[in-house]
Amino acid sequence: MALATSISSVFDQGSVKVKSFTIKTSDLSSPPTQLFIVAPVEENTYPVLLFCHGFCIDNTWYSQLLQHISSHGYIVVAPQFYHYMLISPTKETEIAAKVTDWLSTGLSQVLKEKVKPDLTKLALSGHSRGGKVAFALALGHAPTSLKFSAILGIDPVDGQSPSNRAQPKILTYVPRTLDLEIPIGIIGTGLGDQSTGIIPPFAPDGVNHAEFFNESKPPSCYFLAKEYGHCDMLDESKASLASWACKSGKGSKEDMRRAVGGIVVAFLNDYLGGESKDLEAIFEKPSTAPIVLDPVISVKE
Amino acid sequence: MALATSISSVFDQGSVKVKSFTIKTSDLSSPPTQLFIVAPVEENTYPVLLFCHGFCIDNTWYSQLLQHISSHGYIVVAPQFYHYMLISPTKETEIAAKVTDWLSTGLSQVLKEKVKPDLTKLALSGHSRGGKVAFALALGHAPTSLKFSAILGIDPVDGQSPSNRAQPKILTYVPRTLDLEIPIGIIGTGLGDQSTGIIPPFAPDGVNHAEFFNESKPPSCYFLAKEYGHCDMLDESKASLASWACKSGKGSKEDMRRAVGGIVVAFLNDYLGGESKDLEAIFEKPSTAPIVLDPVISVKE
Repeated sequence: MALATSISSVFDQGSVKVKSFTIKTSDLSSPPTQLFIVAPVEENTYPVLLFCHGFCIDNTWYSQLLQHISSHGYIVVAPQFYHYMLISPTKETEIAAKVTDWLSTGLSQVLKEKVKPDLTKLALSGHSRGGKVAFALALGHAPTSLKFSAILGIDPVDGQSPSNRAQPKILTYVPRTLDLEIPIGIIGTGLGDQSTGIIPPFAPDGVNHAEFFNESKPPSCYFLAKEYGHCDMLDESKASLASWACKSGKGSKEDMRRAVGGIVVAFLNDYLGGESKDLEAIFEKPSTAPIVLDPVISVKE
Repeated sequence: MALATSISSVFDQGSVKVKSFTIKTSDLSSPPTQLFIVAPVEENTYPVLLFCHGFCIDNTWYSQLLQHISSHGYIVVAPQFYHYMLISPTKETEIAAKVTDWLSTGLSQVLKEKVKPDLTKLALSGHSRGGKVAFALALGHAPTSLKFSAILGIDPVDGQSPSNRAQPKILTYVPRTLDLEIPIGIIGTGLGDQSTGIIPPFAPDGVNHAEFFNESKPPSCYFLAKEYGHCDMLDESKASLASWACKSGKGSKEDMRRAVGGIVVAFLNDYLGGESKDLEAIFEKPSTAPIVLDPVISVKE
């Protein structure tokens, strides 16, 4: 049975032991805002992912997803942009930039002694409005001292409609104008543009994943979680909580988190780790994922 | 100077002499609606383009554009869907289907004796809401007895906003879902999403060329007439007339018509004529066009 155990999948938990913890602004490392961090505990040097939470969502509500990613050998830093009092995406982007700068000085201080971040391998992700913030940061709407090597939007949303979007507007409504010179990945949800009937949909047509992908300059890739909703990748209890307002898929939320986590890991393995086989495997056979991914699109040039 | 004269461009008038004429429903050939036809007069067999006019626009208002296309060896048939009294896109699609069926029996009757249509080489195009109708027809919203080999939308528009679109809705807000199994071309205008301040824009973000391209299954291609407006390919006098309500480019409208006409010809040469060099030349060097085309995108698979 040696063969079976040696086949690991990005859709399963990785083999690296991880620890989750929160760093307050009062910490000696002086982070610009509270941070939720998930990091390996084993001695090694790891690439880093900066993750931006969505509208009215706490950074800790993604703990299961971020643990999945980290267990494949990544340090994940998720800033909390606000508590209770909403701020503008412009302000969120400024905070995200400050957190990025903090990584160089602060991150090593808060990790276990022999766990080292490799900041030459830094990627960016975000969910919902956090996807907008991630793109705003990558596009330079707030300056950073570090460079990102790849960006992955998880059901990113640029506003309420094409004509009603907060600054900074990301979408231009011209294909391939998001010219970031880094690989772009987009994960969409098939139910994100649907309403529960209580409030409007969270990821309306025209400002959601489809247009973000349309405007992504290759190399770019796209994955639609066809039967899931906008908040279905949150922690189990939070996804249930969100489902009153946010259309939710009928399938297992754990499968959704594994699918999203697996795509993120495969994407990072390729563009931070230089190992393309996991991502290529998803392009070739989307059915290896625990949920329906349809369509899956890869644009190389 | 033999070399210079031998270089012909799709952006120039072609060498084929053409004639424009209107066929009324009272004609012996019994067309389902009034038709504006532009056809070569020289003896030969020619591929056919069915062209659907835009919202509140007469089929004859495209005479210069359609003459340009026809002069490269194509028969163009442009039905008039309504006069004065607007009808629904569903109804327009039904009429377009009837006109398609009429081509087999009626078209030869109205052409000069030795001018023959080759209905095995039939393409579809449309401007503005006529682009929506063209896609509706290709998608089978009304059945036809003939098959289309390619479709090209000229600043197509699916409605007023993603959430406000008349039936049949074409866009799905999922990339590459317009699975027509035929090549798709999209020409957009850079100013189509802008308003003159009098009425809303004719081709608003989220329902225009960008999303049509995003949803086109390859092979697909995209051309943005960056500095021109939604009605700038109409006949000279009509483009001026339209400019009160429809944001217009500052450049020469003749150049715009030549650019759009040239793209249509290159597209038809490739997908009806089997000669790809003209289209490839535009992909390779968009600056050969008489106007700024930016971006130009070709997706092969």
